[in-house]
Amino acid sequence: MLDVLNDETYMRLALDMAAKAKGQTDINPVVGCVVVNEGRIVGLGAHLKRGEGHAEVHALAMAGPAAEGATVYVTLEPCSHHGRTPPCCDRIIAAKAARVVVASTDPNPLVAGRGIAKLREAGITVEVGLLGSESQKMNEAFNKFITSGLPYVTVKSAMTMDGKLAAKTGDSRYVSGPESRELTHTLRHQHMAIMVGVQTLLADDPELTTRLQVPAAHPIRIIVDSKLRMPLHAKLLQDKISPVLILTTEHADPSKCAALVAAGAQVVRCGSGEKVDLSVGMQLLGERGIGSILLEGGGKLNGSMLEQGLIDKIVLFIAPKLIGGAASPSAFEFEGFDRMSEAIKIKDIQVQKVGPDVCLIGYPEYGDRVNGAT
Amino acid sequence: MLDVLNDETYMRLALDMAAKAKGQTDINPVVGCVVVNEGRIVGLGAHLKRGEGHAEVHALAMAGPAAEGATVYVTLEPCSHHGRTPPCCDRIIAAKAARVVVASTDPNPLVAGRGIAKLREAGITVEVGLLGSESQKMNEAFNKFITSGLPYVTVKSAMTMDGKLAAKTGDSRYVSGPESRELTHTLRHQHMAIMVGVQTLLADDPELTTRLQVPAAHPIRIIVDSKLRMPLHAKLLQDKISPVLILTTEHADPSKCAALVAAGAQVVRCGSGEKVDLSVGMQLLGERGIGSILLEGGGKLNGSMLEQGLIDKIVLFIAPKLIGGAASPSAFEFEGFDRMSEAIKIKDIQVQKVGPDVCLIGYPEYGDRVNGAT
Repeated sequence: MLDVLNDETYMRLALDMAAKAKGQTDINPVVGCVVVNEGRIVGLGAHLKRGEGHAEVHALAMAGPAAEGATVYVTLEPCSHHGRTPPCCDRIIAAKAARVVVASTDPNPLVAGRGIAKLREAGITVEVGLLGSESQKMNEAFNKFITSGLPYVTVKSAMTMDGKLAAKTGDSRYVSGPESRELTHTLRHQHMAIMVGVQTLLADDPELTTRLQVPAAHPIRIIVDSKLRMPLHAKLLQDKISPVLILTTEHADPSKCAALVAAGAQVVRCGSGEKVDLSVGMQLLGERGIGSILLEGGGKLNGSMLEQGLIDKIVLFIAPKLIGGAASPSAFEFEGFDRMSEAIKIKDIQVQKVGPDVCLIGYPEYGDRVNGAT
Repeated sequence: MLDVLNDETYMRLALDMAAKAKGQTDINPVVGCVVVNEGRIVGLGAHLKRGEGHAEVHALAMAGPAAEGATVYVTLEPCSHHGRTPPCCDRIIAAKAARVVVASTDPNPLVAGRGIAKLREAGITVEVGLLGSESQKMNEAFNKFITSGLPYVTVKSAMTMDGKLAAKTGDSRYVSGPESRELTHTLRHQHMAIMVGVQTLLADDPELTTRLQVPAAHPIRIIVDSKLRMPLHAKLLQDKISPVLILTTEHADPSKCAALVAAGAQVVRCGSGEKVDLSVGMQLLGERGIGSILLEGGGKLNGSMLEQGLIDKIVLFIAPKLIGGAASPSAFEFEGFDRMSEAIKIKDIQVQKVGPDVCLIGYPEYGDRVNGAT
């Protein structure tokens, strides 16, 4: 394949660097930056860790004096405010760059166009929008969290071609193939937390860690457990690999709660109903700085999250097999609608073959169906 | 796109012509033929109708004297026996072709390599196998029917992303989009018959005809109706567009049977059980010269056909929506297996985006699971 060298070439490189850092920037967006002067790349950078240098800072440091008169390609609008680090705009202006190409503006209300304005005021040419939708998609979780304070929830499920998560006996080893499971672990790396129901814990005693051919980040483990049925000897309480957070209700037994806390878990009470109030749960998780969640629930938890409009993205692996059984569980179990025309639409469907399986990715559109959902 | 001119160029053209004739050759295979001499196409042909000229005959007639010394590209081994038309081998030999390129050998035990041998004996160079798997796939229905006497059954279904055919109320207008429905009608054109359960008839009073932007062939309509509940005023009995065939049991009421026959239907009794013996049904349909069936059943009929190993191919449209409801019907309803590892595997999965939907195509592998199934 032959490719022309142009602005897009450099922006794609910046996007590639940003994409690879997904999962290691906490609630921060992923950002990549390429500095080009006199026809050569003189600086490369990506935001790698919250609280440390932004992409532009790394790239300009590498460029040194070669940044003067250069073009800076950056996937997200440079920040104009003092956060944990000084504003990148000032850094770019100080480096005397001549031109800045920005993929997408920052949805953060503290930035939102101000970075671009500040650069222009300093006499720098700024162009906005090149590969913008790709940059936005890469930061879909950040975009939601920074504007709503709620975590971005991706539900991942694997079902047979007849829509079942497991056989009628509950046996589910395995629905999807090893390639799909490897992608699932990559999704764990890319989300801040993983969430399951206590039923999954009781059935499988899973670790809920990230296991890949390379070392990877482990998600915070969130268990939805209305009655605190979680056993103290659960593997994920023992392993200390990453925090464990239990969502329960005001009614949960205080002594079991104390024992779980003593075992290292955090317990978050979500509402005073019979069951965990998931909407309240998402709010409290957001307040604790959890910006993205990979939901790997059973059909009931997935269904409840969907009914309440709390799922932002669906990743569904479909395995080429038919298991049958009226009692075999479905990936989404919920009350449902009377008319096919009322079904929740899933937009922007992408399809991908993954080993023997097929992966569908899409975004539920709740319309005015769900109170408070967008 | 640039393409090199070679043997494959001509064979692809022959395959294209054959593919377009799918649905109009009754139980016969689709076959295409291209005759090339001195660097130019001199003859084109396809088998268009059972009992009329084979592809080679049409192409050689077009070529006339230019067939002498020519290369004949033909997608299926030329026949060597007297069927409804004289053997094509003799026609090729008489035309003095120099070389014959064959995509695939004929599975018909009356031909099976004999055509190729006969050509070689006449001093013609014969090459076999170019794009052979494509030719075989195009004739998968013919290949089964000619070797087993049983119709090839393609099940077509459309489900939501949570595996449902309809809402819990039974409402199913519509699961898939217009593009998927247009492909379904194309499948009707390409199969000799369509099969549904009487329940579908009672619920929707469907026509089960082929409705496309161009005139197309209508399938024979087969209704599985153990108790002859089919109403005499059913649209498909009135319209006389194509034959109606009812599968029932020995117990079915003779007077209702007589009334249906008087209304123009054929009634086929399949076994003396409570329900139609579908295996016997397939055998009897095969004996009546039905070589391929598009099964558009509800979950129960699809599930029974699957359990008995009678489904050869699955075409599943998945619509990007979630309908919910534990009582919402599934595309395949059957007893099912205890272990996920026992599930019926679907091999050679192909994926295609169709408008807003995703289409999965594959072939169930029954192993030794089903008595008498391969």
